[in-house]
Amino acid sequence: MASQNSVAGMSPKITGELLRQLRQAMRNCKYFSEPIQAYIVPSGDAHQSEYIAPCDCRREFICGFNGSAGTAIVTEQHAAMWTDGRYFLQASQQMDNNWTLMKMGLKETPSQEDWLISILPENSRVGVDPWIIAADQWKNMSRALTSAGHSLVAVQDNLIDAVWTDRPERPSTQLRTLGLEYTGISWQDKITALRTKMTERKLTWFVATALDEIAWLFNLRGADIEYNPVFFAYTIVGMNTIRLFVDLKRLSDPALRDHLQLDSPSKPELSIQTFPYESVYTELQAICAALGPKDKVWICDKASCALTQVIPKTHRSPIPYTPLCLAKAVKNATEIQGMKMAHIKDAVALCELFAWLEKEIPNGTVTEISAADKAEELRSQQKEFVGLSFPTISSVGPNGAIIHYRPLPETNRTLTMNEVYLIDSGAQYVDGTTDVTRTMHFGTPSAFEKECFTYVLKGHIAVSAAIFPNGTKGHLLDSFARAALWESGLDYLHGTGHGVGCFLNVHEGPCGISYKTFADEPLEAGMIVSDEPGYYEDGSFGIRIENVVLVVPAKPKYNYRNRGSLTFEPLTLVPIQVRMMNTELLTQKELDWVNEYHRKCREVVGAELERQGLTLVQANRSDQEGFLIALQ
Amino acid sequence: MASQNSVAGMSPKITGELLRQLRQAMRNCKYFSEPIQAYIVPSGDAHQSEYIAPCDCRREFICGFNGSAGTAIVTEQHAAMWTDGRYFLQASQQMDNNWTLMKMGLKETPSQEDWLISILPENSRVGVDPWIIAADQWKNMSRALTSAGHSLVAVQDNLIDAVWTDRPERPSTQLRTLGLEYTGISWQDKITALRTKMTERKLTWFVATALDEIAWLFNLRGADIEYNPVFFAYTIVGMNTIRLFVDLKRLSDPALRDHLQLDSPSKPELSIQTFPYESVYTELQAICAALGPKDKVWICDKASCALTQVIPKTHRSPIPYTPLCLAKAVKNATEIQGMKMAHIKDAVALCELFAWLEKEIPNGTVTEISAADKAEELRSQQKEFVGLSFPTISSVGPNGAIIHYRPLPETNRTLTMNEVYLIDSGAQYVDGTTDVTRTMHFGTPSAFEKECFTYVLKGHIAVSAAIFPNGTKGHLLDSFARAALWESGLDYLHGTGHGVGCFLNVHEGPCGISYKTFADEPLEAGMIVSDEPGYYEDGSFGIRIENVVLVVPAKPKYNYRNRGSLTFEPLTLVPIQVRMMNTELLTQKELDWVNEYHRKCREVVGAELERQGLTLVQANRSDQEGFLIALQ
Repeated sequence: MASQNSVAGMSPKITGELLRQLRQAMRNCKYFSEPIQAYIVPSGDAHQSEYIAPCDCRREFICGFNGSAGTAIVTEQHAAMWTDGRYFLQASQQMDNNWTLMKMGLKETPSQEDWLISILPENSRVGVDPWIIAADQWKNMSRALTSAGHSLVAVQDNLIDAVWTDRPERPSTQLRTLGLEYTGISWQDKITALRTKMTERKLTWFVATALDEIAWLFNLRGADIEYNPVFFAYTIVGMNTIRLFVDLKRLSDPALRDHLQLDSPSKPELSIQTFPYESVYTELQAICAALGPKDKVWICDKASCALTQVIPKTHRSPIPYTPLCLAKAVKNATEIQGMKMAHIKDAVALCELFAWLEKEIPNGTVTEISAADKAEELRSQQKEFVGLSFPTISSVGPNGAIIHYRPLPETNRTLTMNEVYLIDSGAQYVDGTTDVTRTMHFGTPSAFEKECFTYVLKGHIAVSAAIFPNGTKGHLLDSFARAALWESGLDYLHGTGHGVGCFLNVHEGPCGISYKTFADEPLEAGMIVSDEPGYYEDGSFGIRIENVVLVVPAKPKYNYRNRGSLTFEPLTLVPIQVRMMNTELLTQKELDWVNEYHRKCREVVGAELERQGLTLVQANRSDQEGFLIALQ
Repeated sequence: MASQNSVAGMSPKITGELLRQLRQAMRNCKYFSEPIQAYIVPSGDAHQSEYIAPCDCRREFICGFNGSAGTAIVTEQHAAMWTDGRYFLQASQQMDNNWTLMKMGLKETPSQEDWLISILPENSRVGVDPWIIAADQWKNMSRALTSAGHSLVAVQDNLIDAVWTDRPERPSTQLRTLGLEYTGISWQDKITALRTKMTERKLTWFVATALDEIAWLFNLRGADIEYNPVFFAYTIVGMNTIRLFVDLKRLSDPALRDHLQLDSPSKPELSIQTFPYESVYTELQAICAALGPKDKVWICDKASCALTQVIPKTHRSPIPYTPLCLAKAVKNATEIQGMKMAHIKDAVALCELFAWLEKEIPNGTVTEISAADKAEELRSQQKEFVGLSFPTISSVGPNGAIIHYRPLPETNRTLTMNEVYLIDSGAQYVDGTTDVTRTMHFGTPSAFEKECFTYVLKGHIAVSAAIFPNGTKGHLLDSFARAALWESGLDYLHGTGHGVGCFLNVHEGPCGISYKTFADEPLEAGMIVSDEPGYYEDGSFGIRIENVVLVVPAKPKYNYRNRGSLTFEPLTLVPIQVRMMNTELLTQKELDWVNEYHRKCREVVGAELERQGLTLVQANRSDQEGFLIALQ
């Protein structure tokens, strides 16, 4: 779980003048041959990023709403913004009266297509920036509009940018090279493996547009997007050429040039040609103009409409997940070692935080915000800390029931001995990415709070300890996390787990554990996902127990059809508060799991605490207070 | 689980002359303007039926292979037949050298499209009977062929029929009317409910093509297809008209005419107009010619290409499941009562069978076939027995590991005290349809057999006793059935359950319990599905435990967001052999479930046995031998 909205106040943005200017641009034939009657403003960037840079927050700029999901549409007379249930309240507070909030998921709310069709005059032209709409979304929208006599028009100049006078620059942060001690595989070997996959599929070109895939491929990291160590770039790989599109100013550092062998490539087919970021379109056009009749270009079907449509349809080979996405998901031994180290350091910081909380909370001086700040401070003291991996969810009592909560000054609650505290947080270290949730009570939890916590724990264990055949898709494990809650009539309305990058995005595909997906790729050894069931009692408390877990081979008694089996190994080694458990509801197997987990926490994290010169008294303190008490 | 192939010998069919005649027809411009270079022979009928009538077994006729799934394609030079892993052996034995077996699921096997494209001369025309290819399949095939420069051509006259001189007549069996005491709802009320759904969706016409939906809608049953009490018909329902397309000779019976109110309809909008079966095409054409600009026609996207394409695309509203399919799946109180009665009668027959087997097997005179025959004989003595609901799977030892096995004279094994016996069987009664699998050992099962049986039992119980929220889709429960097997490295390669009709098809949509589906409709109270995990040890034994279960409301402690909870109530009340269980592997909860289940079997089936004047000695016999022994 990770909240994605950036901090902002909750008073509505005044948008009357902006909308006037945008509507003027919609009539201005500088941008197109004929005026457009509607303009769609999606929330993404040109790389389908989940988190986006300030310069790409165009939907927020035009309407004021800064949640992670939402699409704005402006016509001559209307302005409407679609978002989902997580954001109804926030959006209604951040948008002024010029805007109609379209509550997705409610029966009475029209789809964007239906709404447009219901209000547009005949033969209308609807514009959108083809760079920030995905190819598959374009297709659906275009089909719906065409069938109603309208047309969807690609507007190359972004009309928001045209009225956004103080739009921030696109970030161009310093690039960091990662050596083999972090990556395990050189970028040259990754290119070779990619070309092997291309040969297998008889494909001549591969276009990479996802920022984390490009960062992973070249063993480079940036800081262009908050929380995500990526940088703005595109890559086109052919059988003999590699084209990298990036702000060329970034490539002056000698160590970086050396890493990429820009000045002395080892082999001609591993020579990287660099181009300005913006020239990807014309270069891809040139490549496509020279395609042979059988040449095929591999591109993700979620890539931008602009780039996808450069490739003639007969040469296009769209895929739901790129080979880089799949290769990146299966961590190698070096990456696994790095992830383990990152999680141990992270656990040290959290054990320190919990000890500090136990000491400070009785004074009434700790708030959601100060606890989150303390967590960041303690993490930042760990070696190779780079930053947080997402905004910390630090929530007390009823705030904990808001799944994507993050504390703001006007919502900030004080941690007390009387309410449940939920903290979902993580960091980027050079060797790995963490994401952990713990739920605690610093006084005496109610029987109901303990009961719910215990059901969530049972679900967490059921997934973590599950043994399943090689080739099983993660969504088939989702119900294991819910069975105990379901048995008591309870549930939680989010998925159970997501893929986690290695010093990369905290959310990554193509694997995960969720009832919502079906087309996820099968789990295999080396993949890393989160295991985070929860329970949320509206207006009262929220519970979530999240570990990051590694898919590892299992060795059960039999081996049906030689398929082999898998299970999970927790990478997160942070104690789970025993005080919140109703141990009578746990089976012996579950008790054994908890005790073995805590034994491992004590052994591994305890050793690191000592190594860091932290007194064991401090570590043992929380132990005595119930974090690490063995159950037998 | 139900085997679907009809009985046939295993020597190959000689097809040289037939293929010569078919190829001649492919060149004969009597059937089309230009000759075709390939002809596709799908395995279905015009109603997407799972089981088909002899007159529709065209693929079997042309190639000899009589399994339930397979597509034949004939070109000037080649003849190839695609089928899946269940049928590789059978198909290779039933087809002669003129045919190439295309083993689906193997990497080296080309798809039908790829194979056609690889062998056809440029600009080829590929023919298919548009009545027996579904609209969605046509679309995919047509798209692939077109992109390679070929075309898919609808050939109205079936070319197999043209060379099939002794093709059987289309069956036209007597129709049976079902009164309210069986159906709970009159057909008039079903029509009204359908029209309400049409109004909600703003649809003016609904075309029904699935035979079980039409039988259900009119509270009629036929015997046109073995095991399935359906009759060949189409129906088109408008807001004021009902058109029924059926062999008009069937409508002479006064009771039937009265049931359908053919001579004196109660209201004009409930007046049924009858038409010959074949005239559905021209009638639908006439309807479509008169459509207003906003009129929409509802048709299943699995309906035949022929009928679907009659409807202009802008007026077509395709759906994965029709409203009749959904309404039929949720059984009303009368249907549930009928299903319960049918299952009690079925249990009496099986208890008698098991007692008979215990007595006869030591004599060495019982075979797979004679046991199946005995089961049918005992069932046929029960009130309102109509016939079997699918061919009985009666399998001993290694035959049990063949999931879709049915005994043939050349494979027939004798039941002994040394091998596991699996019987999967069911019947049609006027009040309901049954489907039950029990696995037994009449001597001393091995520790491994008991272990596997117990894991399967744990899976069966995990599904049967599961509590889950209203709105849960069945596929989310599939892993519950596998968890115990997975933990030991075992699994089974089929789904866990299918929908079951009420005196209708033993397999029906839109609900089920399978990892293979995603678009299944949510389970709701009144739906009936099977729960049938298994384990198959190739060359040694097969285990399956199958009950038909009813979805019922559950009342757990809490009620999250007022969603309500569901669970299952077993309708099948046939004891599960305790001798096969390793009770040490069962939890107390599982033992309690088994004991409670057997208590209910004794109570309910025992009472019926007594009522039928069967001596309790006989019933108790199997009890003493381990069927009904309580565990505590």
